[in-house]
Amino acid sequence: MDLIAVFIVISGFIALFYAGFLVYRIRRESSGTEKMREISNAIHEGAVAFLNSENKILIIFIITLSIVLGGASLIPESGMHWGTMVAFILGAFLSIISGNIGMRIATMANAKTAEGAKQSVNKGLSIAFSSGAVMGICVVGLGILGVFGLFLLFTEVFALSIAMTTNILFGFGFGASSVALFARVGGGIYTKSADVGADLVGKVESNIPEDDPRNPAVVADLVGDNVGDVAGMGADLYESYVESIIAPMSLAAVAGGIALQTYGYNAIILPLLISAIGILSSIIGMLFVRTGKKSNVYSAMRNGLFASTILVAIFAGVATWYLLNGNLGPYYAVLAGLIAGIIIGLNTEYFASEKQKPVKRIAEAAKTGPATVIIQGLVTGMMSTVIPVISVVVAMILSYVFADFYGVALAAVGMLSVLGISLATDCYGPVADNAAGIAEMSGMGREVRERAESLDAVGNTTAAMGKGFAIGSAAITALALISTFIVSLSLYYSPEQLLSFLSLSSLTSPYLVAGLFLGAMLPFVFIALTMGAVGRAAYSMVEEVRYQFKEFKLLTDPNSKPDYKRCVTISTKRALHEMILPGLLAVISPITVGIVFGFVGPIGAGLAGLAGLLLGSISTGFLLAIFLANSGGAWDNAKKYIESGNLGGKGSDAHKATVIGDTVGDPCKDTSGPSLNILIKLMSVVTLVFLPIFIFFG
Amino acid sequence: MDLIAVFIVISGFIALFYAGFLVYRIRRESSGTEKMREISNAIHEGAVAFLNSENKILIIFIITLSIVLGGASLIPESGMHWGTMVAFILGAFLSIISGNIGMRIATMANAKTAEGAKQSVNKGLSIAFSSGAVMGICVVGLGILGVFGLFLLFTEVFALSIAMTTNILFGFGFGASSVALFARVGGGIYTKSADVGADLVGKVESNIPEDDPRNPAVVADLVGDNVGDVAGMGADLYESYVESIIAPMSLAAVAGGIALQTYGYNAIILPLLISAIGILSSIIGMLFVRTGKKSNVYSAMRNGLFASTILVAIFAGVATWYLLNGNLGPYYAVLAGLIAGIIIGLNTEYFASEKQKPVKRIAEAAKTGPATVIIQGLVTGMMSTVIPVISVVVAMILSYVFADFYGVALAAVGMLSVLGISLATDCYGPVADNAAGIAEMSGMGREVRERAESLDAVGNTTAAMGKGFAIGSAAITALALISTFIVSLSLYYSPEQLLSFLSLSSLTSPYLVAGLFLGAMLPFVFIALTMGAVGRAAYSMVEEVRYQFKEFKLLTDPNSKPDYKRCVTISTKRALHEMILPGLLAVISPITVGIVFGFVGPIGAGLAGLAGLLLGSISTGFLLAIFLANSGGAWDNAKKYIESGNLGGKGSDAHKATVIGDTVGDPCKDTSGPSLNILIKLMSVVTLVFLPIFIFFG
Repeated sequence: MDLIAVFIVISGFIALFYAGFLVYRIRRESSGTEKMREISNAIHEGAVAFLNSENKILIIFIITLSIVLGGASLIPESGMHWGTMVAFILGAFLSIISGNIGMRIATMANAKTAEGAKQSVNKGLSIAFSSGAVMGICVVGLGILGVFGLFLLFTEVFALSIAMTTNILFGFGFGASSVALFARVGGGIYTKSADVGADLVGKVESNIPEDDPRNPAVVADLVGDNVGDVAGMGADLYESYVESIIAPMSLAAVAGGIALQTYGYNAIILPLLISAIGILSSIIGMLFVRTGKKSNVYSAMRNGLFASTILVAIFAGVATWYLLNGNLGPYYAVLAGLIAGIIIGLNTEYFASEKQKPVKRIAEAAKTGPATVIIQGLVTGMMSTVIPVISVVVAMILSYVFADFYGVALAAVGMLSVLGISLATDCYGPVADNAAGIAEMSGMGREVRERAESLDAVGNTTAAMGKGFAIGSAAITALALISTFIVSLSLYYSPEQLLSFLSLSSLTSPYLVAGLFLGAMLPFVFIALTMGAVGRAAYSMVEEVRYQFKEFKLLTDPNSKPDYKRCVTISTKRALHEMILPGLLAVISPITVGIVFGFVGPIGAGLAGLAGLLLGSISTGFLLAIFLANSGGAWDNAKKYIESGNLGGKGSDAHKATVIGDTVGDPCKDTSGPSLNILIKLMSVVTLVFLPIFIFFG
Repeated sequence: MDLIAVFIVISGFIALFYAGFLVYRIRRESSGTEKMREISNAIHEGAVAFLNSENKILIIFIITLSIVLGGASLIPESGMHWGTMVAFILGAFLSIISGNIGMRIATMANAKTAEGAKQSVNKGLSIAFSSGAVMGICVVGLGILGVFGLFLLFTEVFALSIAMTTNILFGFGFGASSVALFARVGGGIYTKSADVGADLVGKVESNIPEDDPRNPAVVADLVGDNVGDVAGMGADLYESYVESIIAPMSLAAVAGGIALQTYGYNAIILPLLISAIGILSSIIGMLFVRTGKKSNVYSAMRNGLFASTILVAIFAGVATWYLLNGNLGPYYAVLAGLIAGIIIGLNTEYFASEKQKPVKRIAEAAKTGPATVIIQGLVTGMMSTVIPVISVVVAMILSYVFADFYGVALAAVGMLSVLGISLATDCYGPVADNAAGIAEMSGMGREVRERAESLDAVGNTTAAMGKGFAIGSAAITALALISTFIVSLSLYYSPEQLLSFLSLSSLTSPYLVAGLFLGAMLPFVFIALTMGAVGRAAYSMVEEVRYQFKEFKLLTDPNSKPDYKRCVTISTKRALHEMILPGLLAVISPITVGIVFGFVGPIGAGLAGLAGLLLGSISTGFLLAIFLANSGGAWDNAKKYIESGNLGGKGSDAHKATVIGDTVGDPCKDTSGPSLNILIKLMSVVTLVFLPIFIFFG
């Protein structure tokens, strides 16, 4: 095992070194004209300002929860260890770090990408992809080092039992979850309030093009792409990544559990080893992308992802065979997760692609006006849930058959093993989007603008796939966490108690059904809150832009200059203000149900209610997240389909109808949908962290 | 008990006699001018033509399923009785009858209502309400006579055991379900394809008012109100009504069950007795409405409903006390259901009312265009799920605490006990809507038109409440059926087997979770199919209307006449064609999951999967149904709010934005949303009817 430990640690450091190397290379690229650097700097400053403001709120949140966790550990009856608090703080800290790094690089690379696009489309793509790769690689590197470091700390230095240590590790997941909550929800509200606000006054009311420098909200819009799609997405997947590793470790560590009996203690290390293999495979896959410099780089990116996947598929098998003495059951579970992830990504691509029927049908519906565009988009999004659900269900049952609940948790590890490269392709999108904006704002000429826009178009497709992947991984991670929840109960209950609890928590319990209904309701409330927040924040932005248009005579006086900063400040303040309520809801709901049901009902009612709550929120949250992401993506691309000259092209009535569809889709796909990923994971991890307390209340 | 039996039978016959009396009175009213009668006849013929075509398909469906049920009963291992087939046929037959009666009266009363409005608003209201009352009273009368008649037939004439008899009764529910499926889905597609088609070409493209006689789709639109909102709604609630009575009867009849042990055999009769009390209370409540002739009849309708509720609340207590020897536990469960039903209705009223904040906020959002109208409507609908879910959860837990699962089933009886009068207020809506259309088409002058429109406005509010009530009752009926499913297992399994099954079917089973995910997915697919169907059918209608406008020069030549019949035929054909796929989905899904999971997994996997499937579809279906109904209602009334002179009034940009919202909301609230009621109930009742077969396959 020592050799394996070294391998895991090295993989983490290789990731960080490779990220450093990429940063060095990106820095050497030119940032273009002064005008471009100026815009890039404004975006950078806006993004950093948002992160700093957000971090202030986060720190209060983290300190509060640390006090709760630390305080609970002082009460022996609570069954909680102080290590959970330490893990919590570290998890939050590392997530903040990786989000910060990713966003700083992304805001540095945007002007360089635009400048690169002057040379060639592929040059621009290469820079944008490298900056995305920094984010992807940092996330997985810091993820594996954090989890394994804590594991070694508590087992080796403090000599805690492995079961206790894995329990503490959920604190790490909780820390990552908390950051993700604010980054995703706050970032999501920010990005769309700026976007919708800019569009409503700019494109719709005043008929000026997107990213027009006269629009005062345009910088806030570009900042939004970074805080939402880079920092938010990164924190979301950082959470999925670490929790997917911790869940099977914990399952394997359960004393008397099936995994331990069947595979021995190596089963605890297997998830880490597979993740380490995934990191190296991702880096190799990225090298594949580089070689494709002269060919179509979109297929190069896809080929890189497939290459990484194949490498993981091969070496994970070898590793499992070696570590578990030829027992390949868990490997098949990993494989099931890996394949399910790819199918979900491809499904999203199909439903959101301009080249496929669903988007074309929405565009066709534009002939009869905006109402039919909306209806057809809703139909598309709802229909797009079928394949992801069936994929997850099949992966879950197969991995359960192959390796019990340990297998279900490993399926999540499999799906997320290629996160390094898949996150790189996701984060490429917002950088390309920013580059197109900078090209437009700095007046780089039609050819460069068109190149930058074509980069942006590829980014839309990869971002759509990335969203599908993020949702799928959130669902399977949450399932892994729930599996752990159920199996963990055996740590606290005798077999007889457990049997009685199981029959209570089974269907015969109205508490379970009650929890299920409440859980299924939460995603609806979460969507209403976040979407309403976008509406309110966008409205403030609309008023500000209208004010500046009028006051500074921006549209009539060519010498006037908009005040970008005021818009950035509005987005920041509103987003941070609006994220509090949904954030609290996610944390408080499981705690409330666990304690209230425990008080009101018979023994086990609290746990049954919690189980129902989690299952209800996961199933409904997963479906609504796919629905929102794919409806939104399809509306967006239906608009692009018409803009590229079909059905009357830009400016036609059909185009106007799809612009309305796109505006509706924006908060769906970039705010409410992604926020659900966090909701379902966070509730599960809160349940696991506070499990001793819920058991105390029955 | 004999006296009680007589009382139950008499209550059913009183209902039918009272309905006959109302018909007699309505017939005596004048149908107005020849023009009005002509239009009314056209609507009547269109509606009857649709019902006849629908019934042809239904008969094939019923014969097929009868052969399946009859064939299964010939195989002794299946454990099924031929009585199920008989009950199935009778259930379908009675549902068709009550739908037919309701619709024939409604299409007869529309012109009479318009003519009545000439005299006074209240005269019109009285006629419309009476015609709704015929439907309401027929549904409950035929419901209770059907259930109790079959019960007596099998226990007294064929001397079957009570447990076997109640099992057979689910066949009756299945028959009602099958009719409801086609009536709701087909009717829903019909009504909205005609409506959207008429509006898109008429109001949007050609700028002619709603219900303009030159629009060839206008009769189809008016027919749609009847086949969707009268026949469809009636069949939906007929199903809820009979199934809610059968479920607690069956639970009480389970040998060794808690209900039987605690309350004795009278517990089997209690649901029938409470329903009988509900029928008489509804009729008395209707008399209250009559007395309010000179005052505001809207509050009179509401007062009537409240009066009935109070009567039920009092006499159900007396009946329970008498029948169960002073044991009032089940009575509290009835009360919990009754109150939950009212809260859900009031919640819908709040979220869809022009006078409340949610609708006003949508109207405000119209200032920034249609996109924000859509977003705000989505937010409103999502938020409106909170109170209904909490109401159902609280009612379920309380009724479980008071009387175990028998209590949960009785809560459904309580909620539906006042169906007679509440359905009357629902069905009033489409009659008033038709009356307004006839007033417009026959050129009755501004004053009468305005009166008819004000009748229509009240109808919108009552229809919204009715929709909320229909959804709530569907959810609680489905919960009652699931409770029966779980408890029924004890008929087939020994206690030891059951315990092992329970632990398997509990959370530790991935088959349950898999079923849950699939179940949660079905409502999304169902919505996509039905909403897509409306789009496709509306498109055919748009083409036909455009064709007629051009070919017959309807807009330019004042002597030209549109061909209404062609549009009616298109709606009929398309609706019937499009309802097949979602219909089959609802029936086939539980059968597939039950058998496939049973084959693939260990013993109990099929049943666990089924349980998950039902729970998933109920929780998600319930939420989506509320969301769609309330979003749709709120969009509709936001438009009406602006039309009544606010924010620029008719013709303003804000108005146009809300028209788009209304068009999106139409299929949500009148097609897809209501169809979900059927989906969740039908899947539960299919599971119960085929339970012996699922158990055979494990």
